[in-house]
Amino acid sequence: MSLPESEPQRWRAVIEAPDLPRIPALELFPVVEGGRLPAKATVGEPFPIRATAFREGHDAFAAEAILLDPDGHEHARERMIDIAPGLDRLEAWVMPDRPGSWSFCVETWSDPYATWRHDATVKINAGVDVDLMLEEGARLLERAALGRALHDPAQTAPGARARAVLADAVLRLRDDAHSPQQRLSAGISSQIAHVFKAHPLRDLIGRTESYPLYVARPRAVSGAWYEVFPRSAGAFQKPDGSWVSGTLRTATEDLPRIASMGFDVVYLTPVHPIGTAFRKGKNNALTAGPNDPGSPYGIGSPEGGHDAINPDLGTFADFDAYVEAASGLGLEVALDLALQCSPDHPWVRDHPEWFTTRADGSIAYAENPPKKYQDIYPLNFDNDPEGIYEAVRDLIEVWIAHGVTIFRVDNPHTKPVRFWERLMREMHTAHPEILFLAEAFTRPAMMRALGMVGFDLSYTYFAWRTEKEEIEDYLCEVSAETSHILRPAFWPTTHDILTEQMTTGGPAIFAIRAMLAALGSPTWGIYSGYEFTEGVQRPGFEEAIDNEKYEYRPRDWEAAQETGIPRLLTLLNRIRGAHPALRQLHQLSVHPTSHPSIISFSRHIPARFSPTGLPDTVIVVLSLDPHAVVEGTIDLDLSALGLEEFDGTDAPLRLVDEFDGATYTWGTSDWVRLSPWTRLAHVMSVHATNASPNASSPDVKD
Amino acid sequence: MSLPESEPQRWRAVIEAPDLPRIPALELFPVVEGGRLPAKATVGEPFPIRATAFREGHDAFAAEAILLDPDGHEHARERMIDIAPGLDRLEAWVMPDRPGSWSFCVETWSDPYATWRHDATVKINAGVDVDLMLEEGARLLERAALGRALHDPAQTAPGARARAVLADAVLRLRDDAHSPQQRLSAGISSQIAHVFKAHPLRDLIGRTESYPLYVARPRAVSGAWYEVFPRSAGAFQKPDGSWVSGTLRTATEDLPRIASMGFDVVYLTPVHPIGTAFRKGKNNALTAGPNDPGSPYGIGSPEGGHDAINPDLGTFADFDAYVEAASGLGLEVALDLALQCSPDHPWVRDHPEWFTTRADGSIAYAENPPKKYQDIYPLNFDNDPEGIYEAVRDLIEVWIAHGVTIFRVDNPHTKPVRFWERLMREMHTAHPEILFLAEAFTRPAMMRALGMVGFDLSYTYFAWRTEKEEIEDYLCEVSAETSHILRPAFWPTTHDILTEQMTTGGPAIFAIRAMLAALGSPTWGIYSGYEFTEGVQRPGFEEAIDNEKYEYRPRDWEAAQETGIPRLLTLLNRIRGAHPALRQLHQLSVHPTSHPSIISFSRHIPARFSPTGLPDTVIVVLSLDPHAVVEGTIDLDLSALGLEEFDGTDAPLRLVDEFDGATYTWGTSDWVRLSPWTRLAHVMSVHATNASPNASSPDVKD
Repeated sequence: MSLPESEPQRWRAVIEAPDLPRIPALELFPVVEGGRLPAKATVGEPFPIRATAFREGHDAFAAEAILLDPDGHEHARERMIDIAPGLDRLEAWVMPDRPGSWSFCVETWSDPYATWRHDATVKINAGVDVDLMLEEGARLLERAALGRALHDPAQTAPGARARAVLADAVLRLRDDAHSPQQRLSAGISSQIAHVFKAHPLRDLIGRTESYPLYVARPRAVSGAWYEVFPRSAGAFQKPDGSWVSGTLRTATEDLPRIASMGFDVVYLTPVHPIGTAFRKGKNNALTAGPNDPGSPYGIGSPEGGHDAINPDLGTFADFDAYVEAASGLGLEVALDLALQCSPDHPWVRDHPEWFTTRADGSIAYAENPPKKYQDIYPLNFDNDPEGIYEAVRDLIEVWIAHGVTIFRVDNPHTKPVRFWERLMREMHTAHPEILFLAEAFTRPAMMRALGMVGFDLSYTYFAWRTEKEEIEDYLCEVSAETSHILRPAFWPTTHDILTEQMTTGGPAIFAIRAMLAALGSPTWGIYSGYEFTEGVQRPGFEEAIDNEKYEYRPRDWEAAQETGIPRLLTLLNRIRGAHPALRQLHQLSVHPTSHPSIISFSRHIPARFSPTGLPDTVIVVLSLDPHAVVEGTIDLDLSALGLEEFDGTDAPLRLVDEFDGATYTWGTSDWVRLSPWTRLAHVMSVHATNASPNASSPDVKD
Repeated sequence: MSLPESEPQRWRAVIEAPDLPRIPALELFPVVEGGRLPAKATVGEPFPIRATAFREGHDAFAAEAILLDPDGHEHARERMIDIAPGLDRLEAWVMPDRPGSWSFCVETWSDPYATWRHDATVKINAGVDVDLMLEEGARLLERAALGRALHDPAQTAPGARARAVLADAVLRLRDDAHSPQQRLSAGISSQIAHVFKAHPLRDLIGRTESYPLYVARPRAVSGAWYEVFPRSAGAFQKPDGSWVSGTLRTATEDLPRIASMGFDVVYLTPVHPIGTAFRKGKNNALTAGPNDPGSPYGIGSPEGGHDAINPDLGTFADFDAYVEAASGLGLEVALDLALQCSPDHPWVRDHPEWFTTRADGSIAYAENPPKKYQDIYPLNFDNDPEGIYEAVRDLIEVWIAHGVTIFRVDNPHTKPVRFWERLMREMHTAHPEILFLAEAFTRPAMMRALGMVGFDLSYTYFAWRTEKEEIEDYLCEVSAETSHILRPAFWPTTHDILTEQMTTGGPAIFAIRAMLAALGSPTWGIYSGYEFTEGVQRPGFEEAIDNEKYEYRPRDWEAAQETGIPRLLTLLNRIRGAHPALRQLHQLSVHPTSHPSIISFSRHIPARFSPTGLPDTVIVVLSLDPHAVVEGTIDLDLSALGLEEFDGTDAPLRLVDEFDGATYTWGTSDWVRLSPWTRLAHVMSVHATNASPNASSPDVKD
């Protein structure tokens, strides 16, 4: 095309793009920004590759999805199947097995055997071109035996056994001692079909460009998190009203409790020195009293900044001991990364250029005009982008060196996306095991973009999705629509979030939201204190009163047992541990129910992708009403359960309730009664039926 | 990222991609296959550029869509506006002015003036940081006067007049003899706003990659086509039953009639020699009688192939004369390109490798097993791709040399997409004025792909969209959803298509479908004979009986006047000629009506994109019922008419019916009565109201 000399870059993609494959495959998925950013995939998690593929005319063709490992080797090659008849949209599922820079592409080829089999069957049955079709079949099988594909010099011949099968069929196709039907049968036998399936004759083969996938370790998609303020555990008030802070050592003593509930990650709010200038008091009071410890998000004091430990909490040796104890209990440690400073932060003195200086020479506070947040200096990432980038990278390295494997990033949406793009890219290369969770409660475009540039996990709108239909939609959105750019974490509450819904439903709503989070998303999280069903907001704010951000909150964990929540959390994590279907994101299905407050969904993993080698299916039926008895019917979508050929009348489903081991036999439409006083949910695993359970799935072939 | 050595290509896009702009712009539109294929645009046709753009924090920013001409020069730069509040989806409209390889990108920048104006107004009104905000405003205006943008050394200072305005405001912002409100006013005056609008201070500017656009001449999007079989005009039967063929010379005599109806393109079915082997007779009879001329799609005889003229029609000199006469009447000539051969085609003898040879040594007929089409040998594009490509290109060059400017390509979906990709790419370079219309009546994926690889125009599903709702959806689909990859042509009938609907509605349905086609798509076409409302199908087939493909069909055009259709076609083309809004594709809106058989839509073009310099709006209200009177109300979407601030009660719309000049005054909800016996439609242009007509549009700023 008439390429302008002045800007050769602009049409480069067009000029350099290879021709389309001989049989086109377009609109590949998952592709982010045309392949300029990698899509997300996870070790041990099957995901779909899709393409729009079709050919001219009526001849048969095939499309195969090819997953390439970081060394460029073919890790998987799967025949794609039509998922939208008439629209030529094809799909295959694949699963990477180690982290790194993977990629995928699609190959298409003409399938002369399928074409011949169709045409020969039709024509010989109609008595048309009988001898010709038999001879053409014989020649085709000869060509297959020699591995002579049209326009594919790389094609190889099949093994000796397959060659013998083909050669025998060739003889019989040409053996005019038999009837045309008998001769045809030799060419279309299941044995021959088997040979072609194992070693197809791929004429006119073509391959699309490859598209990048960044594959993260399994914890990127699945984990149970528990959030703590380490200073609270073991804190106590002295008779004079002053406090003795909890420490990393006392917090260490709380780890067995957390681990015993089955959590995988313990998330620490910031552990750094806290400033005293404009320190906030209880309930965000503008001035702190002498006994107020300040918010751990007001980071930095003469004792150090983001790379230091608050002396009240202990030392790096204590931190190391904490991490070691956690690790011994099977817990990873996630640390808060809140890139903002108190006015006392050492950077303010050493690097005033990393902040914004006002016309009067002062450093700018955080503001939302006319409101001011005088305890916080936001960083300015544009005055010295290189200097600030290196400082942040270096402090992250400090914590990685001390055993932190996950960073929970506070408010990433208030920092430049490009800063994160660079940091995530460098971290994925230097430390592929380190994960980053984005705490961005903001509009969808920014949330998606943070995922696109590399955040491994994302907080979500889960806490604000409260009605049945919006929960159903959201479950589908995060598990299917955005799963290639954003891995969700469902938190019923956090130290910053206590929604209206949680204030009126009593313990029942805490149970409901915990079940929704633990079963609706492979990553879920609990903020400590949830066990007490603490449901009172600070007036005018969507967060808990007497917030742990501003004060010590030691808790009597024995007393929490009364709510039943600790036992529920433990059970939920145990069920998640037993069921790989619950630890993967993609394969979720919603089932219609007759009641506006009964929600039902299931997760399924077929045998070939299951770590146990067995298919796994879990059906959740949950009441959303913390106040009343609800009853209604569930219409199970059997194909979503991997039971598409199951006949609900003849062969009932055998279900085992994972909470209590009760067994049920269900058909395709079943009645439930749920209440806050008896049971709020069924969480049921699917067991054998007489119709070969989980034998097949429309999405994923076992 | 850990790049594999074995296949460096795969992550190349990721490695080479520039960082995101400092303020991100993602998900650009129109982009085809990540920019590997150009999107479509047309000379003189405005189209939208979209991006998802947003920034961290609360500061103001701007996004500008930039259209780059084939020399890489900035042709247009438009501020993008939010079209989906909360979703950060921005849009701007631009218009190219010559054909060729254009491109577009998006620039984003921080808008410190908008940020200051907002913050200063809020804070000074609240009495917070008053002196500080005024001084910061003064410094900002000083910086603007010097053109000192943050991180943009390319920024220039504004002109002397603007600098003086800024300098004066700086003095007043600092003049403490006045009140803070007065000083603030100096900084936020409309004069200052004007300076910043004309010469913004663009901090932190960044630009996305550029994406390719192939811009075609106006006929690619808009034209009225008329299809003829040239042998019919002037043909006559002798007393012995034999026929004398019409010729290019007699067909030339028919051109003034076609031109007088206002058509732009005369489309000739194939003019090449017709084979005699297995020639089809009347109504597709398997054997032809001695007087049957054969189908012009059975191309090739000893007298020549695709680069020859059927001697019955005349000579190349006659063809040249036809083209010249057409051109003199303002008609372009489109020629059929049907890449298939009769068994008598010279290629069969000279290039048997361009066909498929069967096992018995014969050449394969066209088949749809068990059916055979023995009069046609399909080409095989895979045996000698280079040879066949060059032969096709050479024959196209022959017809281009003889004045053909458009090719109507028969059944492109039965040939490899890659063949077309190469041909279209070469033609767009060598002959950017030549257009190609794809006659692909097949599934959506193939139809879209043919557009993606370069076909300028496409036949559509229009003939099969008959119900109100599906017509409304289809109008929106072709004008907004697929318009960057596929330019539609609406044909009520063709020589191959006569739908069921056309067989029962009498002349009224022919009128309805002509109006829908002419007003619903900027390209529409009529197959000659439409004027006679010929509505009888060949039994069992969706095409006209006594089909012109197989016989001479001379017509008495005077007699056709009685149907009223010739007059209607003339009027429709006249209205299209008078209204640029009807000759562009993108800006169509559907208006709700209360009756299931009344459809209403409008097309609008704002003044700044209109060739007349005036805004143009046409409202269509049409009955879809050829049998009955229908009545109901239309709820006009005034914003779609460029009248968003119009108050229907106080200032009625003045409408002029383009058919008869009748004038109407309409509000926002109006009643119509339509019938086959009085009038089936209103086609109304919008004229002055007292509310500044067409002053603005939500889509396109005037």
